[in-house]
Amino acid sequence: MNQTIETILNHRSIRKFKAEAVGQDTIQTILRCACNGSTLGNMQLFSIIVTTDKDMMQKTAPLHFNQPIATNAPLMMTFCADLHRFNRYCEFRNASTDSYDNLQSYQWAVTDAIIAAQNACVAAESLGLGICWLGTITYQVDQFIDILHLPKNVIPVACISMGYPDEQPALTDKLPVEAFVHQDTYQDYSEYDINKLYKDKETHPNTIQILKENNLENLAQVFTERRYVKKDNEFFADVLKKALQNQHFLKEE
Amino acid sequence: MNQTIETILNHRSIRKFKAEAVGQDTIQTILRCACNGSTLGNMQLFSIIVTTDKDMMQKTAPLHFNQPIATNAPLMMTFCADLHRFNRYCEFRNASTDSYDNLQSYQWAVTDAIIAAQNACVAAESLGLGICWLGTITYQVDQFIDILHLPKNVIPVACISMGYPDEQPALTDKLPVEAFVHQDTYQDYSEYDINKLYKDKETHPNTIQILKENNLENLAQVFTERRYVKKDNEFFADVLKKALQNQHFLKEE
Repeated sequence: MNQTIETILNHRSIRKFKAEAVGQDTIQTILRCACNGSTLGNMQLFSIIVTTDKDMMQKTAPLHFNQPIATNAPLMMTFCADLHRFNRYCEFRNASTDSYDNLQSYQWAVTDAIIAAQNACVAAESLGLGICWLGTITYQVDQFIDILHLPKNVIPVACISMGYPDEQPALTDKLPVEAFVHQDTYQDYSEYDINKLYKDKETHPNTIQILKENNLENLAQVFTERRYVKKDNEFFADVLKKALQNQHFLKEE
Repeated sequence: MNQTIETILNHRSIRKFKAEAVGQDTIQTILRCACNGSTLGNMQLFSIIVTTDKDMMQKTAPLHFNQPIATNAPLMMTFCADLHRFNRYCEFRNASTDSYDNLQSYQWAVTDAIIAAQNACVAAESLGLGICWLGTITYQVDQFIDILHLPKNVIPVACISMGYPDEQPALTDKLPVEAFVHQDTYQDYSEYDINKLYKDKETHPNTIQILKENNLENLAQVFTERRYVKKDNEFFADVLKKALQNQHFLKEE
């Protein structure tokens, strides 16, 4: 096992950081790694908003539902799917500027942006930093667009808090690798498969604790009835759809 | 600079591989890394279709426009945004099975799947393998769904060929890091900025060669008039939109 594999297998989200700032050299190394990933046709369809300013973090905190992680890290990077820069390039080179106003191009740019973000995370962790993704970045995407001054053809898709860890939580209870892997074609999951694959997770002390706190029968219900409820998901799906329309990635009906 | 940073900064796409198969231990290590990334709410919304079978690669090759890379690697991994397994879990636990039939959940799952894919790539490269993403996976997504037997709520989003490199191409001409980075808020690009940021790329011998071959004025036009033409992008955007509808991630209008 080499250092890279160790870094990846040692990943856990960090939500408590030392006050120590992340040095400029370290930030630059992380950014270089972010910008060196695979990218469709070498178009590099992403941008990175770097924030070390606590006032800026405070501004977006309500959109992250005021999770402590939204303000307590010394460094935050927001990765955006970005066709705007490429369109500007086209504009100044006498090329069409609306070739990429569509959902396919959005999918390319999301892919580029998440590749960049994950490269940044692995690089950061290899340098002793802790990281935590804020999934909330995709929820009220319209308001992030306003606050971050994102032009048309730019959508934020990943937000990561980084800093030197001030905690060492246990590794998360993940599903076993065989839960994800299919040979050649997808094999559907029987009830037997699901019971087997979720067994360790369902009997994990974390899960027992969560069920007790929520007074629910099982973990599935914790998700569907508490954490990610249909009504909320559909509301935020609609916000995302409207943002895709406003940002020129999806035609209005 | 540590080994992880070196691995990431040394990335280049490999399109020619030795015949040598990738050993099962190596594949397992790569898969363990893929499955250990960040994931929304620890829901782990992805699946991985692993292929070493050349007949299977031949079947999907036309959907990759018969690029050699679609069949010439000993190993291929297709990463899917997957809400199906979670819905099955809900089904067998008396929880709602349609909470995640929406675009927001699709965005979560795409993110989880690309994180997994990039972890796999970095892990593979750290083990001496070469990798190449096949962007074509998002094009005729409906036909990939058929061939891979993907159920509702599953969409392929990344396809990566892997193997031991039989070439050592030069590093790609990327934009400088400052092209991607914004402090706190997005700063728009002036014509001066674009000229400066694209200068090295536009004067790169690769670019000169490409312009000659295509008989075009500049690289922007190579993209808009040859490689990723509006008409094709819109066609494949429509295929993707219909697939999102069929797979229950987007309501039909």
